[in-house]
Amino acid sequence: MSKLQTAVRDIAEEMRVRTDRGEVATYIPELANVEPKHFGIAVVGVDGEVATGGDFAMPFSIQSVSKVFTLTLALGKAGDRLWSRVGREPSGSPFNSIVQLEFEKGKPRNPFINAGAIAVTDLILSGHQPREALGEILRFIRFLADDPSIAIDEKVAASEQRTGYRNAALANYMKSFGVLENPVELALGVYYHQCAIAMSCLQLARAGRYLAMSGRNPETGHPVIQAERARRINAVMLTCGHYDGSGEFAYRVGLPGKSGVGGGILCIAPGKASIAVWSPGLDLAGNSHLGRVALEALTKRMGWSIFGA
Amino acid sequence: MSKLQTAVRDIAEEMRVRTDRGEVATYIPELANVEPKHFGIAVVGVDGEVATGGDFAMPFSIQSVSKVFTLTLALGKAGDRLWSRVGREPSGSPFNSIVQLEFEKGKPRNPFINAGAIAVTDLILSGHQPREALGEILRFIRFLADDPSIAIDEKVAASEQRTGYRNAALANYMKSFGVLENPVELALGVYYHQCAIAMSCLQLARAGRYLAMSGRNPETGHPVIQAERARRINAVMLTCGHYDGSGEFAYRVGLPGKSGVGGGILCIAPGKASIAVWSPGLDLAGNSHLGRVALEALTKRMGWSIFGA
Amino acid sequence: MSKLQTAVRDIAEEMRVRTDRGEVATYIPELANVEPKHFGIAVVGVDGEVATGGDFAMPFSIQSVSKVFTLTLALGKAGDRLWSRVGREPSGSPFNSIVQLEFEKGKPRNPFINAGAIAVTDLILSGHQPREALGEILRFIRFLADDPSIAIDEKVAASEQRTGYRNAALANYMKSFGVLENPVELALGVYYHQCAIAMSCLQLARAGRYLAMSGRNPETGHPVIQAERARRINAVMLTCGHYDGSGEFAYRVGLPGKSGVGGGILCIAPGKASIAVWSPGLDLAGNSHLGRVALEALTKRMGWSIFGA
Amino acid sequence: MSKLQTAVRDIAEEMRVRTDRGEVATYIPELANVEPKHFGIAVVGVDGEVATGGDFAMPFSIQSVSKVFTLTLALGKAGDRLWSRVGREPSGSPFNSIVQLEFEKGKPRNPFINAGAIAVTDLILSGHQPREALGEILRFIRFLADDPSIAIDEKVAASEQRTGYRNAALANYMKSFGVLENPVELALGVYYHQCAIAMSCLQLARAGRYLAMSGRNPETGHPVIQAERARRINAVMLTCGHYDGSGEFAYRVGLPGKSGVGGGILCIAPGKASIAVWSPGLDLAGNSHLGRVALEALTKRMGWSIFGA
Repeated sequence: MSKLQTAVRDIAEEMRVRTDRGEVATYIPELANVEPKHFGIAVVGVDGEVATGGDFAMPFSIQSVSKVFTLTLALGKAGDRLWSRVGREPSGSPFNSIVQLEFEKGKPRNPFINAGAIAVTDLILSGHQPREALGEILRFIRFLADDPSIAIDEKVAASEQRTGYRNAALANYMKSFGVLENPVELALGVYYHQCAIAMSCLQLARAGRYLAMSGRNPETGHPVIQAERARRINAVMLTCGHYDGSGEFAYRVGLPGKSGVGGGILCIAPGKASIAVWSPGLDLAGNSHLGRVALEALTKRMGWSIFGA
Repeated sequence: MSKLQTAVRDIAEEMRVRTDRGEVATYIPELANVEPKHFGIAVVGVDGEVATGGDFAMPFSIQSVSKVFTLTLALGKAGDRLWSRVGREPSGSPFNSIVQLEFEKGKPRNPFINAGAIAVTDLILSGHQPREALGEILRFIRFLADDPSIAIDEKVAASEQRTGYRNAALANYMKSFGVLENPVELALGVYYHQCAIAMSCLQLARAGRYLAMSGRNPETGHPVIQAERARRINAVMLTCGHYDGSGEFAYRVGLPGKSGVGGGILCIAPGKASIAVWSPGLDLAGNSHLGRVALEALTKRMGWSIFGA
Repeated sequence: MSKLQTAVRDIAEEMRVRTDRGEVATYIPELANVEPKHFGIAVVGVDGEVATGGDFAMPFSIQSVSKVFTLTLALGKAGDRLWSRVGREPSGSPFNSIVQLEFEKGKPRNPFINAGAIAVTDLILSGHQPREALGEILRFIRFLADDPSIAIDEKVAASEQRTGYRNAALANYMKSFGVLENPVELALGVYYHQCAIAMSCLQLARAGRYLAMSGRNPETGHPVIQAERARRINAVMLTCGHYDGSGEFAYRVGLPGKSGVGGGILCIAPGKASIAVWSPGLDLAGNSHLGRVALEALTKRMGWSIFGA
Repeated sequence: MSKLQTAVRDIAEEMRVRTDRGEVATYIPELANVEPKHFGIAVVGVDGEVATGGDFAMPFSIQSVSKVFTLTLALGKAGDRLWSRVGREPSGSPFNSIVQLEFEKGKPRNPFINAGAIAVTDLILSGHQPREALGEILRFIRFLADDPSIAIDEKVAASEQRTGYRNAALANYMKSFGVLENPVELALGVYYHQCAIAMSCLQLARAGRYLAMSGRNPETGHPVIQAERARRINAVMLTCGHYDGSGEFAYRVGLPGKSGVGGGILCIAPGKASIAVWSPGLDLAGNSHLGRVALEALTKRMGWSIFGA
C-alpha cells in the first residue's frame, strides 16, 4: 500500500467516527434530507494513482463546485474579457451577500460568490438557448471526468428554482446594472441546473485533474486550457474558493479549493494530485466541516501544501 | 550567468525604462519626497545564490512589510492565542478601512491590514516599555537579515506620528472594544517606528529567507519558527498581503507577498527563494506598481508560481 | 385675492421662469419623455379654500406618492401588526438601496423606501387577487380625492414592469427572508400599477386632505382613519418621506411630505392645508427640485412650518 | 390646578411606580453609578407657566442634550458655513457609528451624532483656547436658563476623557480628512466637558425656551437667534435628535427632541412649551426609556403633536 493509499484509508476511517459534523444546509429543501453521516474521499495523482475512501462512489450535489468548471469554460469562450464583468478579489462577505454589489455598482467581486457565478453562467448562455448552454456545461464536465454518466438531479434543480429568492435578488440586481446580458430567469435556470449536477468524489477528482496538470487533459495530454490560465484559476480558488472562510482554508489546508453547500470540496495540489472530499455537514461559512478537516490531515501527511515543506 | 541572474538583470533593465510608475504615497509627508524613478530587486535562493539589480542596495522605508516580521515575533511569543485578537481572512477593504471593525466589534480581519498590525504590535508591547518592544523588533529583523546595521528612520517615524490620524482612529476604536491592552499612544508609537525601519532590497530578501526555508535560519539551520507556522504565515501573506489587491497579486504573481506603501514588496517562493523588490510608485490599492510587474515577470520566467508549472 | 391665492400665484410664476430644474428620471423609460418645463401647484385648505397655479390640472405619474395611500390602507387592514414587517426609521440610504436589507435580515427600514412600500403592498394583496388589490387601492384614492376619473397609466406600468430589475431584487431579497407573503411577481405587479396611477396636483391635494384634518374626510366629516394614526403617518412622512433627502426637506420646508420620481410631492400642513406640487426635474436624492423650492417658499410666506412661527 | 399641572403631576406619579426602566448607561463609569429610580419632569410654557414633577430639581449629566446649545452657538458664529462641515440628514446608525464617516469621507451626517457634535465643538473652539471655548458654552447655557449656578461635573468629564476611545476614534478619523481644525485632544477636551454639564429638568426646560418661542429670549424678548434658525434647529432635532430611534420618537411623541445618555431629553412644543424629562434608564438606541414614555403621554394629553390635532 502506497503512502497515499494509507493516508486516505486512515483519514476516511477517522472521519467516519467523528461526531463533530457541522450542519446540513437547509435552505434548499431537497438538500436538507441528505444523511449527515456520509463521508467520501478520492485522490487522483498526476501519475495516475488513485486512492479512495468512504462513500467515494456515491453521487452528491456539487453545487458551487460547478463554478470552477463554468469559469474554465467561460474563460475559454470569452478570454480575459470575462474580467470586465467579474472581479477576482476576495469579497470578505458570505456567499450570498448583496452589499458588495451595491457598493461596486453591480460588478461581483469574484466568480466564486453566487453573484459572480451567475454572471459567468450568463456569459456562457449568451447566444444560446438555456438547454444548449446547459448541455455544453454538462458535456464539458463529462469530458473532464471522462465519464458520460454524469447527470443533473432534476429534483434538486427544481427545489432550488422554487426557493432561490436570494439568487433571484442577486441576478435582478446585476441585471439592473447591465451586468447580465440574458433574461434573468434564463440565466438563473441554467445556474440552478449546473449547481444540481450530481457527481461522486471519484468523478469530481477526475474532473479536476487538468488544474493539477498545468491545464492538460490527462487522457490525451492535450491542453484543456493554457497552463497560465490553469494557474490563475487555482489562484482564484485559493483566495476566493471558500467565501469568507477562504483565509481559513488557505491557512489550514494550504491548497486551492472550491466548496459547495452540498458538502463537496474540490482541492488541487498543483503538480501532484486532484482531490475531492464530501461530507454534508457545513461550518458557519457554508463549507464542509469534515471535508476541510480531512484535507488538512491529508495535505499535512503528504507534505502537499503550496506554502512550503 | 545563471538563469536567475539573467532574469533579474533583464527585469531590472526593463523596469528602469518603463514610464508607468504609479503614484508615490503622499499621506506620510516624509515619504512623498521619495524619487519615483527608483527600482531595486534582490533575490536570495535557498541554495544561497544571490541575484540583484537596480537600486538593490538603497534603503527605503519598509512600512507594512514590517508586519510580516512582527506577526512572526508575536506568534513566537503568544502562539495561536494571537488569533483570538486578530482574524485571518481577507477583508475585501482598503488597508485603512474602519468599516469592518465596526461590523465585527473591533476585531481586525487579519494581521496585515493596519488595524490588525497595530493589534499584533500591541501584543508584542505587553509587559514591556515601548523602547524595549521596539528594540526586540529591530533585533529580530537584524538577526533575520544577519545585518546589525539596519536602523529606524526617525524622520519618517516622526512624520507618521504627526499625521497618523487614521491609524489613531483605528487604534482608539479597537481600544474601545478592549482589543488593545496597552495605552493607545504607546502601541501607536511602536507601530510607527516599526514601519519606519529602513532596509534595502538585499537586506529585506535576506530577512525573508526563513519563510522560503520552512522556518529555518539559513545561516545556522536552526528553526526560527516551526515549519507549519512558516507555511501559515505564507498563506496569510497570499490571501491578505496586498489589501484589496491580494486577489490580483495572487492571480498575476502566484506567490505569497507583503507590500508596503514605501513601495517595497517581500515575496516568498517556498522552497526556492526570498525576493524583495522596491519601486515607490503605487497602484490604486496602495501596492507598488512596478514591484508587482517585476515579480510577475520573474515568477513567469523562473516557473515559481505555487499554482502550477 | 386671499393671501394664499396671491402666494400660490406668485410662486407658480416664479417657478415657471426658473432654469434650474434638475434632471428628469430616466430609469423608467416612459417617464424619461416627460417635458421638464412643467410646474403645477394646488393647495386645498381645511376650510375648503382652493388655490392653484401652473399645470395644476395636468395628470402626472404619482409614483412613490402612492405609498402614503397604501400605508394608510394597510394600517386600516392590518393595524399595528404592519410594523412587525416594516420599520419606521429613516434609512440614511437612497430609495432603492438593498444594503440595509442585508444588515437587518430583510426587514425594510420604513414604508416609504421602495422595499418597505413593496412589503406594504404585499400586505394589502394577501388574500386577494392582484386585480382586486389594485382595485381596492384605486377606489381608495378616488374616494379620498372624491374623483372617480383617476386612473392608471398602463404604459407607465408596463414600462416599469419591463425594467424594474432593482425592485425585483428588493422583492426577491425580502421574499428570501419571509417578509413577503405573496408570489414576488404578483406583489411587484400591484406595486408597479399603484406607482403608475396618474393624478393632477389638484386631485392629489384633495386626496391628501384627511392627513391635514386629523384623519377625517372633508366631504363627510367621518374619519378615514383615527386621528392618532393620521398624526403618525405625518410623522413618518417627515422623517422618511424624501429618502436620504428627508432631513433637508424637513430643514427647508418644515412640513411632512412624500415625493415621487415622477416629480410630484404631496405635502401636509396639519390643521391648515393639503398641498401638491409637480415639477419633473429631480435633485440628486430623487426628489423634485422645483417642487421642494416652491414648498419652501409657500411655507415661509404662509408661516405654516410645524417647527415654529 | 391647570390642565398642564394636572397632566404633569399624573405623569410623574405614573412614572414613579413603573418598573420597566431600561438600562443605565455603563460605558462612562461615572454615569453607571446613577440610581435608576429617578424620574423628573419640568414644563415651561411660552406664557411663563411652569409645571414640575418628581426629581425635577435634581441635576443630572446632560450629555448629548448639550449638542442643541453648541449647534445654536456655532450657527451664531459661523452661520450656514457650518453645513459644509456637517450634514443634516438622519444617519440611520447608532450614535457612535464610524461606518458612515468612511463612506462619506469624514463628513458627519448631522450635528447630533457624536461625530457631528465634535465637529461643531471644534468650530466653536477655533481661534480660542479650550478654556475660553468651554467658558463661552457654559455662559451661553447659563444665559438661556437665566441661572448662573449651572456647572460642569468635573468627575464625569474626567471619566469620559479617560474612557472615550470611541469618540477619540471618531475625532481622529475626521481629523484625517481635515474636517477638524484644532488638535484632536483639544476638541475632545471641550466636548467631554460640555457633555459633563449638570442641569436639573427645570434648568434644562428653561434653557430650551428660545426654541419654543421662535428664537426669542423669554426674559428680554430679544432674539437669541433668528426665527428661521430656531425652526431649523427644531427640524434637525426631529429628524436626528434620537440617533436611530429618531423615527420612533417622532412617531410616538410627535415633537422635536434631543436625548442624552445621562437619561435626559429636551423636547420642544413650538409656540407652546419647552419640556425636560429625566430618567436614567435607556432603551436599546441609547435614549431614556421612561423619558420617551412620559413625553408621549404628555403630548397626547395636551394635544401638542406638531403632526395634527
